[in-house]
Amino acid sequence: MQISPWDKRNARDRERLLKRDAVLQVAVRSFNEKGFNATSLDDVAESLNVTKPTLYRYFSSKDEILFECVRLGLEGLQNAAASVERRGGDGMERLKALIRDYAMLMTQDFGMCITRTSDHELSPESRMKFRSMKREVDATIREVIEDGIRDGSIAAGDVRMMAFTVTGALNWIARWYEPGRELSPEQIAERCLATLVGGLAPRSGAEG
Amino acid sequence: MQISPWDKRNARDRERLLKRDAVLQVAVRSFNEKGFNATSLDDVAESLNVTKPTLYRYFSSKDEILFECVRLGLEGLQNAAASVERRGGDGMERLKALIRDYAMLMTQDFGMCITRTSDHELSPESRMKFRSMKREVDATIREVIEDGIRDGSIAAGDVRMMAFTVTGALNWIARWYEPGRELSPEQIAERCLATLVGGLAPRSGAEG
Repeated sequence: MQISPWDKRNARDRERLLKRDAVLQVAVRSFNEKGFNATSLDDVAESLNVTKPTLYRYFSSKDEILFECVRLGLEGLQNAAASVERRGGDGMERLKALIRDYAMLMTQDFGMCITRTSDHELSPESRMKFRSMKREVDATIREVIEDGIRDGSIAAGDVRMMAFTVTGALNWIARWYEPGRELSPEQIAERCLATLVGGLAPRSGAEG
Repeated sequence: MQISPWDKRNARDRERLLKRDAVLQVAVRSFNEKGFNATSLDDVAESLNVTKPTLYRYFSSKDEILFECVRLGLEGLQNAAASVERRGGDGMERLKALIRDYAMLMTQDFGMCITRTSDHELSPESRMKFRSMKREVDATIREVIEDGIRDGSIAAGDVRMMAFTVTGALNWIARWYEPGRELSPEQIAERCLATLVGGLAPRSGAEG
């Protein structure tokens, strides 16, 4: 069978991407468990049965690997925000969908890395990109809350503080969640959503 | 005037404590702004017009200074928890008092340091002490929520997840708050409390 050189090239690209992903998967777990500073690229390489110079074929530095992990996490949040923008329904329905997706992402490696990484662990350039991606997600959350207040599905209040309260509760999942030892990501998302939407004060019978 | 040697000793002790406090005040701001790793004790000493060896009269290491900052923050939370335990009122009244105090502490230097410090920046020994202090505060929050569910002032739900949702929203204040540029700590506490207690869903007119 004749193999086209283009196919060959695609296969090489695919393999390169697979290897690059494997580096990120191992690195993000170490960042989340041990922190950026205590993560050694020698250990990451050893886990993958390669040497450190091999990693440098895919990334120029540990900083770049960290940023790529955080970027992938933020990409997840951006996708959740974008799908909510396309979605129909009132403000509350859209906010609930976004809270669910956000909570689930916080139980996954790259999402967790967003919260567990301190601002000052990123290089100044990465920090700027990080903040601008984060601002987009935050803006969507505020817009959806504003829509909900306007259509009456969300209680009136200080939109910025409401958004901070929601994202704080959600981001914090990434600090306490331990895979396997906990409720499932779906259960965590539903229960966190219940408290945020219903509030701590009991509701009258009529409201259910 | 005759000065008693005991007074002299007290004066020396007081001065020592004042100087020790000054080191912590300068260090905690640097930890919060630049992070533990980027904080240099030479810079801390320079801000205080002394040299680094002078700092070692008060602390044995940068690790010890960080732990002392975090410990002071946690002491604030523990005091808030203890005062809520002595306090009368139903579960919701006591939880509200605790949320207010907790939110205010998150806008202050040492409280902020609790959230901004990653677990893995503390030495293993400090981390154990930190976690045990934190567990005490978390236990009080859960107890107050349980009391409130029992006396009907707080909505029924998964107590542990409710506590995580509350502390997540509160801890996050320490990540976004910038002194001077924001609402006052009192305003932040009240608005965060309003969202947590009332919930995002509107309440029927009868409930106000």
